[in-house]
Amino acid sequence: MSETVFTYAAPALKFGTGSSGEIGHDLRQLGARRVLLVTDPGVAATGHPARIAERLVGHGLEVTTYDEAHVEPTDESLAHAIAFARDAGPFDAVVAVGGGSSIDTAKAVNLLTTNPGELMDYVNAPVGKALAPTERLLPLVAVPTTTGTGAESTTICVLDVLSLHVKTGISHPALRPTLAVVDPALTATQPAMVTAAAGMDILCHALESYTARWYAEFDAKQPEQRVPYCGANPISDLWSERAMDLLAGAFRRAVHDGEDEQAREQMAMAATFAGLGFGNAGVHIPHANAYPIAGRVRDYRPAGYPDEPIVPHGMAVALTAPEAFRFTFDAVPERHLRAARLLDPSAAGDGPDVLPGVLTRLMRDIGIPNGLAEVGYAEADVDDLVAGAVQQQRLLATAPVSPTEEDLASVFRRSMEHW
Amino acid sequence: MSETVFTYAAPALKFGTGSSGEIGHDLRQLGARRVLLVTDPGVAATGHPARIAERLVGHGLEVTTYDEAHVEPTDESLAHAIAFARDAGPFDAVVAVGGGSSIDTAKAVNLLTTNPGELMDYVNAPVGKALAPTERLLPLVAVPTTTGTGAESTTICVLDVLSLHVKTGISHPALRPTLAVVDPALTATQPAMVTAAAGMDILCHALESYTARWYAEFDAKQPEQRVPYCGANPISDLWSERAMDLLAGAFRRAVHDGEDEQAREQMAMAATFAGLGFGNAGVHIPHANAYPIAGRVRDYRPAGYPDEPIVPHGMAVALTAPEAFRFTFDAVPERHLRAARLLDPSAAGDGPDVLPGVLTRLMRDIGIPNGLAEVGYAEADVDDLVAGAVQQQRLLATAPVSPTEEDLASVFRRSMEHW
Repeated sequence: MSETVFTYAAPALKFGTGSSGEIGHDLRQLGARRVLLVTDPGVAATGHPARIAERLVGHGLEVTTYDEAHVEPTDESLAHAIAFARDAGPFDAVVAVGGGSSIDTAKAVNLLTTNPGELMDYVNAPVGKALAPTERLLPLVAVPTTTGTGAESTTICVLDVLSLHVKTGISHPALRPTLAVVDPALTATQPAMVTAAAGMDILCHALESYTARWYAEFDAKQPEQRVPYCGANPISDLWSERAMDLLAGAFRRAVHDGEDEQAREQMAMAATFAGLGFGNAGVHIPHANAYPIAGRVRDYRPAGYPDEPIVPHGMAVALTAPEAFRFTFDAVPERHLRAARLLDPSAAGDGPDVLPGVLTRLMRDIGIPNGLAEVGYAEADVDDLVAGAVQQQRLLATAPVSPTEEDLASVFRRSMEHW
Repeated sequence: MSETVFTYAAPALKFGTGSSGEIGHDLRQLGARRVLLVTDPGVAATGHPARIAERLVGHGLEVTTYDEAHVEPTDESLAHAIAFARDAGPFDAVVAVGGGSSIDTAKAVNLLTTNPGELMDYVNAPVGKALAPTERLLPLVAVPTTTGTGAESTTICVLDVLSLHVKTGISHPALRPTLAVVDPALTATQPAMVTAAAGMDILCHALESYTARWYAEFDAKQPEQRVPYCGANPISDLWSERAMDLLAGAFRRAVHDGEDEQAREQMAMAATFAGLGFGNAGVHIPHANAYPIAGRVRDYRPAGYPDEPIVPHGMAVALTAPEAFRFTFDAVPERHLRAARLLDPSAAGDGPDVLPGVLTRLMRDIGIPNGLAEVGYAEADVDDLVAGAVQQQRLLATAPVSPTEEDLASVFRRSMEHW
């Protein structure tokens, strides 16, 4: 029997310039007194977290700041944050100020300061034990400062398990933030490459949700089998379409002129909307491929990021996106074409090349590397990359057509150089 | 200074045929053991509430059913429900099965069994004291069986205060249901006139949200001044537009053929989407006018409703809608025209008559009365109707242009006969 039900959930949202100044009030409404603020060193350097902490103190809240969230969290970095919070707590609310890394770190800290056990107990199987939390988590207010990850809307915390060289996650509805506060003014400090990479993440959230397997094409689930990600559905479609529409108008402008306030605001809105979409539909092949691409980095060091080897998440997602959507085209051609037209109304044609063409033109314009080769991978790495991607079965199951290992190898191989 | 921030909140949602069979699981996830099920006699007669209660018991829950919710709740009917619940409780979750009346009754019961005082302490000023709840409410699962009110998405409980002959409400974010379970199969028992009236309510939710004053055109609010309804905004627009699109395809079919499953499902989705829109943007003149139109009914008894004098809420809203939107046209012409075209792609013209024309053609086709005269009002009632409408300042403030008493009188007068 086919599925007849889809689900939808979202954090409460406060959107607009100045909204980050109201968090003290919001936290008091949530009953908070002792607050843990989680951020990372780069975001801390912008001064936003300190300003927010000061406002919280002005509202009579006690604030402890943890500013060592690691960009692209690891099991070690999360363990460090959890140990800090267990030691400095108890708290009755958590505020995350930063990109997906800070927000995901806050999710893990929230989980492990309210529930027993250790990180690996909750990490997705087969890497971890995939236990469900048994105790109620604290209210979590997420304040994104990069317009990309949608982490403020989602139920997932992504991490590298260093000893296994694998990127995986923790996924449970209880991890979803209580309130997302999206203040476009906080995103004006993003370097151009961060805007470009994070923007590709937004775009792929929207595109992957929009082309995900339709919810009614899965087998019927029992209520206890439902997961936060239920495939494309009438609600995720609304968010994804509107996000693509906003990106079409703002993405290139936001990368090329960081001072363009309207473009920044539209990117912040696109990120939020795409997050609300993929937070319910799910993502698929480009995100599955991104795990090994980011996790097995050797020595690629992009501008605008901390000086260490890193393929930023959004860039890792983008690098195989054109070829992934060429591969999925036949499963839902009309959605691929409609997405291409939303992103570029002048895109002509009606075949599998249309969407990859729109994507590669965009990637070239905004300075994304021209394929996997440029970030240090070669033909010899393909088997290893495939081995990493196939571990993301939860994501691959959301694709409109299930890729075999050969299919994935072909996507990686064709993604070495895009133009 | 103008407002720069908008807010958005929504219940978690489970949508689709069969979803009402999963509530036991959902309640267990919410930590419930003892559940109060609230419904009304008409809905109880369909057997749906009993079937749902049986499934809950199968999940190990203890269920007490209150099946005396009054269609169009009054202060007396709510006091009765509250007394029942205070006596039969304590409970740790509430389930509402029914139309807006059952869901709103459950909201009041939830409020007054968890918080001190009496109903009028919480009713909107100036009728009541408009106190905010101080204690946390119970999880409330709303299961709509009429496709109209959107009560499953909103923060409001509407009631008649009998002694004052006035319709008013209680409005607070804490009243919003935790989870909305929308099972289109439960709506197949609606009589045609109920589908028509409730459908006009959906349509006016979408239209009034879409034409509401834009959030950024209000004065800037302090965080403690924020209300659940913040005017039209980029998120409510998405929901409203899609709801109108769904109504264009399904409304006439759902009224004329109650067995048309696809139309029923689309109406259920339109109701949910419009509820998510107006639950954040707010409604304005047609809803303000509906309060006295419904509240001062003399002896109008429509088919399909309990045999007592009643102007059903959706019908009361519809009766002045064409003239209200003729009045608001000049404030945002392009939105009135776009809405008209969403509802009827063949609608021609670009003046204030276009949307009223689309609405009156639809109302005639689905059997809504031809104006206020048909439900028992005359010129001599206009002052009294205006006096009732101006009490709804909370709603009138959401209109794109503030109506004077003369403006409202003109809308009522022109609404005596539509065709």
